[in-house]
Amino acid sequence: MGKIDEFALIARFFRSCAPPEPSILGIGDDAALLPCASALRGNRDDASATLALTTDTLVAGSHFLPDFAPQDLGWKALAVNLSDLAAMGAEPTAFLLALTLPRYDPEWLEGFAYGVQACAQRYGVALIGGDTTRGPLAITITALGVVPWQAAIRRSTAQVGDDLWVSGQPGRAALGLAVRTGRLSGDLPGCSEWIAALERPQPRIALGLALRGIATAMLDISDGLTQDAHHLVETRPELTLCVEEAALPLAPLVAQGAPAEKAWAALLGGGDDYELLFTANPRHRTAVAEAARRAGVSVHRIGSVVPRSIPEASPLVLVRRDGTRTTLPPQGWDPFRVAEPLDLDIQPESFS
Amino acid sequence: MGKIDEFALIARFFRSCAPPEPSILGIGDDAALLPCASALRGNRDDASATLALTTDTLVAGSHFLPDFAPQDLGWKALAVNLSDLAAMGAEPTAFLLALTLPRYDPEWLEGFAYGVQACAQRYGVALIGGDTTRGPLAITITALGVVPWQAAIRRSTAQVGDDLWVSGQPGRAALGLAVRTGRLSGDLPGCSEWIAALERPQPRIALGLALRGIATAMLDISDGLTQDAHHLVETRPELTLCVEEAALPLAPLVAQGAPAEKAWAALLGGGDDYELLFTANPRHRTAVAEAARRAGVSVHRIGSVVPRSIPEASPLVLVRRDGTRTTLPPQGWDPFRVAEPLDLDIQPESFS
Repeated sequence: MGKIDEFALIARFFRSCAPPEPSILGIGDDAALLPCASALRGNRDDASATLALTTDTLVAGSHFLPDFAPQDLGWKALAVNLSDLAAMGAEPTAFLLALTLPRYDPEWLEGFAYGVQACAQRYGVALIGGDTTRGPLAITITALGVVPWQAAIRRSTAQVGDDLWVSGQPGRAALGLAVRTGRLSGDLPGCSEWIAALERPQPRIALGLALRGIATAMLDISDGLTQDAHHLVETRPELTLCVEEAALPLAPLVAQGAPAEKAWAALLGGGDDYELLFTANPRHRTAVAEAARRAGVSVHRIGSVVPRSIPEASPLVLVRRDGTRTTLPPQGWDPFRVAEPLDLDIQPESFS
Repeated sequence: MGKIDEFALIARFFRSCAPPEPSILGIGDDAALLPCASALRGNRDDASATLALTTDTLVAGSHFLPDFAPQDLGWKALAVNLSDLAAMGAEPTAFLLALTLPRYDPEWLEGFAYGVQACAQRYGVALIGGDTTRGPLAITITALGVVPWQAAIRRSTAQVGDDLWVSGQPGRAALGLAVRTGRLSGDLPGCSEWIAALERPQPRIALGLALRGIATAMLDISDGLTQDAHHLVETRPELTLCVEEAALPLAPLVAQGAPAEKAWAALLGGGDDYELLFTANPRHRTAVAEAARRAGVSVHRIGSVVPRSIPEASPLVLVRRDGTRTTLPPQGWDPFRVAEPLDLDIQPESFS
């Protein structure tokens, strides 16, 4: 089987279907942006009337374990879509649910619907349509949100000199998966928190909204911190992201009992965290902290955006505690690879 | 395995997630209707700014045969979604594609993308987002269209005295499937047309648009004529649909070589046709004919909407050539049944 990046696949095969109108933001960001006027084929005379749209599929065996509780699966299927809207600074409004089921199992469906509903109520979104089909278990949700066109936070708009920030505690979901699959002990102090991160991710809607006008670029970490960091600069060959090893929130994972190497690999390469990775001008450090406080989420300033020097020519660099630099490859989740998020080529130099 | 209707499943498990606002048309029609102002959580001060949204999944082995050509599958996956928009009288604008693939196969992907693109270009819609995941082959498309709120043609708004109409030639796709699976000879005169109906359905966009202001209620026939006819009146216990056997377009299928009983079963119970089934006031017969002419589609006036008498109490009745009446059960595609669209309990009385 060939290995290919999901984005490369879309670019190669489906670019020709992209929208002709520049007033639509199509493939390549967390969500599409569709001004209402553009949807109505009129002129975009009201820049504030913009829909954000995203779709994500969860497939049994690929995105979740067979014994994943249906109520958690219902929550998560919706939450991962809302996370894409959060990453645009959009406010979620509604969703469509396409459900493929191997059989009619009322008990399973009740649990699943309960989880969907819990997430929908928590974030104030309404189910407006869907489809039910028979086949191997999979869930595709399409979520809609709204954002003023100018306020939408895209992934390609970082600026030289910006700080690089991450919300919350990336790595927990990968550690939770390791516990669930028996690769980490279930007795470690952090286990219940890691498993909750895996099974009930909290989309950072409030933080995304609070960062309008502050963050210059943003995406959510679904595939892994290093891989998604690469997405921040993949259309910006003039930029390099420098991540400071000393600034990465590794210590909390270790303090919760994660072996240091596993914690490191989970932090840099584990997917499924749905934290926000974003850039902001250094003059907005107080504003970022205040936005995070209002949203009730921690944020970590983990690096900066610098010009990409030709000799270096790496989009993502790890700055060690002694000042030396290492290229960070885009490791993490790959839909066409059997992912092992706790194996990473790059190892930490020291653990504090 | 329990057998349950898809609509019953949605009603039972997911009604609690429905939108609170009456300005949104949610679950239960071909597409959801979302006024832009409502999406933006403002007042609906512009009744014309309404988005229509629909999502449909095609699952390998359930909705298409394993040897279905990828270019046809790409076409069909988009076409069935556009058909739902056509059934609302909406104009399609854009779509999102969630693709689950068992492996990375560039040749298959090129064919699939070619089919998607052909359909997208034919109907003027743009791909604005998507997701690619690994798992058993399945395609979920979410399509967006626009329609003035008042012009949207819903499925629940038929009136007593209306004519019942159907577009094109229902039954062809089921006969095409019978040929593809060896249950009908591949040498019959109609084979290539039937297979084209199965593999390259033509969503009746132009007809749907032309029927704005004329049709009182409408849906597309995806599950089978009798089953979808039941959907037209399922929220209208005061209405019965009378289908005139003599008016059904059976003769063309027989003339193309289909055995009469197979043709009859395919016409009444075969799914996958994506023709439009609609009601209109008899004073609009000329307008319907003119709309069909403009759209380049044939239409057949196959019955009428009458008050449901208590003794009869059947939502769908077949009126035989001799005037006797038989209840038509909602036979057709059921996602939780292994469908056999060419077995039908009701048989025709005579063939002309």
